[in-house]
Amino acid sequence: MEPLWPYATPGIPDRLFEQLPGIPMSQREVRLVLLSALRLEPQAVLWDIGAGTGTIPVEAALLCPKGAIVAVERDEDVAALIKRNCQRFGVANVDVVVGNAPDCFDSLPHVPDAVLIEGGRDLKPLLTSVWAKLAPHGRLVAIAGNFQSLYSISESFADLQVRNIEVVQTGGSRLETRGSNQVLKPIVPTFILSGEKF
Amino acid sequence: MEPLWPYATPGIPDRLFEQLPGIPMSQREVRLVLLSALRLEPQAVLWDIGAGTGTIPVEAALLCPKGAIVAVERDEDVAALIKRNCQRFGVANVDVVVGNAPDCFDSLPHVPDAVLIEGGRDLKPLLTSVWAKLAPHGRLVAIAGNFQSLYSISESFADLQVRNIEVVQTGGSRLETRGSNQVLKPIVPTFILSGEKF
Amino acid sequence: MEPLWPYATPGIPDRLFEQLPGIPMSQREVRLVLLSALRLEPQAVLWDIGAGTGTIPVEAALLCPKGAIVAVERDEDVAALIKRNCQRFGVANVDVVVGNAPDCFDSLPHVPDAVLIEGGRDLKPLLTSVWAKLAPHGRLVAIAGNFQSLYSISESFADLQVRNIEVVQTGGSRLETRGSNQVLKPIVPTFILSGEKF
Amino acid sequence: MEPLWPYATPGIPDRLFEQLPGIPMSQREVRLVLLSALRLEPQAVLWDIGAGTGTIPVEAALLCPKGAIVAVERDEDVAALIKRNCQRFGVANVDVVVGNAPDCFDSLPHVPDAVLIEGGRDLKPLLTSVWAKLAPHGRLVAIAGNFQSLYSISESFADLQVRNIEVVQTGGSRLETRGSNQVLKPIVPTFILSGEKF
Repeated sequence: MEPLWPYATPGIPDRLFEQLPGIPMSQREVRLVLLSALRLEPQAVLWDIGAGTGTIPVEAALLCPKGAIVAVERDEDVAALIKRNCQRFGVANVDVVVGNAPDCFDSLPHVPDAVLIEGGRDLKPLLTSVWAKLAPHGRLVAIAGNFQSLYSISESFADLQVRNIEVVQTGGSRLETRGSNQVLKPIVPTFILSGEKF
Repeated sequence: MEPLWPYATPGIPDRLFEQLPGIPMSQREVRLVLLSALRLEPQAVLWDIGAGTGTIPVEAALLCPKGAIVAVERDEDVAALIKRNCQRFGVANVDVVVGNAPDCFDSLPHVPDAVLIEGGRDLKPLLTSVWAKLAPHGRLVAIAGNFQSLYSISESFADLQVRNIEVVQTGGSRLETRGSNQVLKPIVPTFILSGEKF
Repeated sequence: MEPLWPYATPGIPDRLFEQLPGIPMSQREVRLVLLSALRLEPQAVLWDIGAGTGTIPVEAALLCPKGAIVAVERDEDVAALIKRNCQRFGVANVDVVVGNAPDCFDSLPHVPDAVLIEGGRDLKPLLTSVWAKLAPHGRLVAIAGNFQSLYSISESFADLQVRNIEVVQTGGSRLETRGSNQVLKPIVPTFILSGEKF
Repeated sequence: MEPLWPYATPGIPDRLFEQLPGIPMSQREVRLVLLSALRLEPQAVLWDIGAGTGTIPVEAALLCPKGAIVAVERDEDVAALIKRNCQRFGVANVDVVVGNAPDCFDSLPHVPDAVLIEGGRDLKPLLTSVWAKLAPHGRLVAIAGNFQSLYSISESFADLQVRNIEVVQTGGSRLETRGSNQVLKPIVPTFILSGEKF
């Protein structure tokens, strides 16, 4: 059977994922920047904290079939959604863990080469815990949807002495169909911060 | 020797490419959307018309080491730049052709599964010629930096009955260093149109 | 009694207007660009075609208390909304006309110095009719929310030989409160075209 | 003689101002948001700290001919530029003060109803000094071009208990002519913070 996404390039259209109302999902254009910021080697171990709909685990697993992705979600229903999306795309190298970050970190397999923080209440202790787990030369990527998160992540990055920090703010728009009309719908403006451990 | 870009994820930082003054280069954030729109299968044949600095051929070749990329450029110096960038990233499956599009199309090897139009004076006849060459189920992607190009591409797409058309307008910004200051620098707002042949 | 908007500067917050579900309203940041494009002299006559919630008539009337604003709306309920918003802001120089554009143009008082087209089905004949009515040196401003409208307006402007055409695409975002969170909410990306009659 | 800007609406095209290389100028679309955030009453006293090219003093003076605008600039050449731009637009109610903020504040005439901070090295003490001078119910507006300034202003606003804080990030683009081509040129993405004193 032809796989749902037979392509070597990332950027799966949003509508191909199963979605649940109220569960956050990274839009394709935002997801492309996140994947780019993660810089995954073919055999990379990626932790995705607050994985939501599971779009990043799916895309990362397709790009890195020899890698290992750990998706952490505290909500069981959301974890089940991630698993269904992995099945949908025929992805076998994603481990979905139901648990609270950072409490569950000690029980997670492998040392991560890259960690993505998609959300969380206490960002600073979370980032500190993640940083301690991250492999040398590993990459840390975090996404902020408002200024509070942006400040917390920026301060944490400075405190942790994250190197080669890059910040991208997503933007632009895409044409969508609303009834018989087409409208330009803006991409959600989020801040994506990334950097390396030395 | 460690390759310059050992990652399975696209999004090479702009500064890693050799650049020449006046030669256009797709910014990383724009390039990610272009690669996503191309939807390249692992063994895809891609034609890149007006390849400029060669960032798309390099990224496409890294994502599809079993694919074949043909980069068409009319200027010899620019063609040489593309070749140097391919060498820089250790990429062997890019064929750089010095020639005018669409005149050179008949001499190009392979039927393309995807074509990217990065520029050109007479967009409508160019798109018509490309469409005739494109494989069934192939993808056509074109980039417009102003409204004239946007109109020409839109009209051509309608005339050619391109299917499942998508339009993304790039935007957002990234943090750059200017002397001792950091400033948010906007991503160039371009329109990226893509669709399929049936 | 203190007026609701005692300021000499435009940019009334959206929430100060009475709004009805489904009735379009120009966001403050878009409205500022529209007012700027209209370049109203203190005694200007402005026609606002498809005036929606009436934010432009209110702001224009406040900036030009000696001017005359004609707001054209085909729907009686929407026309009543515009009137209530004019009362709310103590504005007396707005004439709300229930009618179809361009059919009602011959019955409208005064020759307009500026016309704003906020919507309409058949944009080309509408723009042609408006142009015939516009005073010499008058300004024509039209807003497009999608590419079809953008093409129609651009072609009409070229056909009518509109001078000194300017195009602005709105963008950016503003901080809004969602429950206990603050989020950056994007400004709707619309195209605002404007120019002059000679 | 006809004045250069006879209009009741703000939004003077950038090219109508005299400009000097290296001297910052608020683009029209950014200026519109700044003026809107200031909410000037007809007889308002406005202090513009770091007035640069003087576009805000000119526009504010035209909107508020009975108001009083004080433009503070430390550089004499820039102060002379502001004066020339005021003359150019026939504006007589702008007082250009050569001095350092906040040192010069005690010598400035009038209590300000609104203060705009367009730049400055030590933003926190500057904002504290400005806040002490601001009239009750006065408005404070500050512009940030990078995250450091955004943090400083946000923290100061919180410390000073600024009320009804609003944040707008400018964006979008405008069509500009480059040789024989037209290109969409992005508006500079800056953060504009504003609020009130109680």
